Amino acid sequence: MSGLSMSSFSFEPLPTAEVEAAEERFTVFTDEVRRLMDLTIRSTVDEDRLSQAEALIRQAADLLAESAPPGPAGVHYNDQGRSWNWGNAVVGVRNAIAPPVRLTWDDDDLVHAEVELGAAYEGPPGSVHGGVSALLLDHLMGETASSRHTKLTVTGTLTLRYVQPLPLGRVRMEARIAETSGRKVTVTAWIGNDNGPAVEATGLFIVPRWAENPEVVTDIGSLD
Amino acid sequence: MSGLSMSSFSFEPLPTAEVEAAEERFTVFTDEVRRLMDLTIRSTVDEDRLSQAEALIRQAADLLAESAPPGPAGVHYNDQGRSWNWGNAVVGVRNAIAPPVRLTWDDDDLVHAEVELGAAYEGPPGSVHGGVSALLLDHLMGETASSRHTKLTVTGTLTLRYVQPLPLGRVRMEARIAETSGRKVTVTAWIGNDNGPAVEATGLFIVPRWAENPEVVTDIGSLD
Repeated sequence: MSGLSMSSFSFEPLPTAEVEAAEERFTVFTDEVRRLMDLTIRSTVDEDRLSQAEALIRQAADLLAESAPPGPAGVHYNDQGRSWNWGNAVVGVRNAIAPPVRLTWDDDDLVHAEVELGAAYEGPPGSVHGGVSALLLDHLMGETASSRHTKLTVTGTLTLRYVQPLPLGRVRMEARIAETSGRKVTVTAWIGNDNGPAVEATGLFIVPRWAENPEVVTDIGSLD
Repeated sequence: MSGLSMSSFSFEPLPTAEVEAAEERFTVFTDEVRRLMDLTIRSTVDEDRLSQAEALIRQAADLLAESAPPGPAGVHYNDQGRSWNWGNAVVGVRNAIAPPVRLTWDDDDLVHAEVELGAAYEGPPGSVHGGVSALLLDHLMGETASSRHTKLTVTGTLTLRYVQPLPLGRVRMEARIAETSGRKVTVTAWIGNDNGPAVEATGLFIVPRWAENPEVVTDIGSLD
């Protein structure tokens, strides 16, 4: 992909300990927003309570808006090799859209994650939206392609096979590097539960030329 | 896909006018939640304001929780042929994850949508998450396969080609039926902006055997 380069990422002189303290704080805060998001879907309260809730939400947002520079969160790194992408739609700790997914590297080639998907991820009745499975797999596979963030990759192609519906609730996903050839990394993956895979995927990930020898070594990983 | 059938959808004796009034009300309410979600990512306020906002969000959620049966929103239909899926992750008017996308049928075979994607949809710095493009395309293509909801389809396979980064902001997507053969519908699509397509997709959608002659004719459409 063109239009991205190392300068898309911004250096921040924030010590890793402070990055981690901020992540802890926002994990708690954003979980409250996730709870609100879930209840916005499920609540059957009357118009009185709905209006009260609406006013409280507006007050909360107005407080946050007192200082909120325009533009997205971006991807940042410090001089200790720590990176953070708090706005990311899959793993961002400040993004209520993100469940968030937390990845576990079993080894350099194998990554898995487990996550609870509630009412906000619905597509077919009671099931995870097929596009949500695609969203989560794309991210997991990109991260996997980065080999523990030792290289920076972008998605080239992604093929998904829908095998069976995936009920909302606890889901598991797993991705592994199937092949590496020059700047190309092929990754296979699935998302499912105790009944086996619901969606299987194969993806081709590419190390952009500008990222082959990045001047700044960070743990940015996948550009998902 | 197995595990879904016409009984997955629930009949509700709610007149279309009331469905539409509820949708209008929740469009406004959920937009407040979307604003909060966006500010949760972008705000730089101090801990004092953050705590105040957190307390207000909790109060709002507690109000909504006074009556909130467990389980997802589901997909419903009435006896006037109107269906609604307010919890859907792409188009649900009560789901803050959904931008929401609003589809326009240009004809039976061609569907487009335009939508503003802000900070909550970020992947690479300043760009739409590749998985979000997959999420939106999957939904759009499934709806397209349904030929204006005259048939009910599920995703079989989906192939995505990532051509260039897609900056956050206004995006456009378009899908068309390329071929129909028995229970199989092939759909091609793209998502992009004035610079052209960023992601191109081909999908195979299938009418499940149990949905070939559904007893209840509704406008449910795609099972995304």
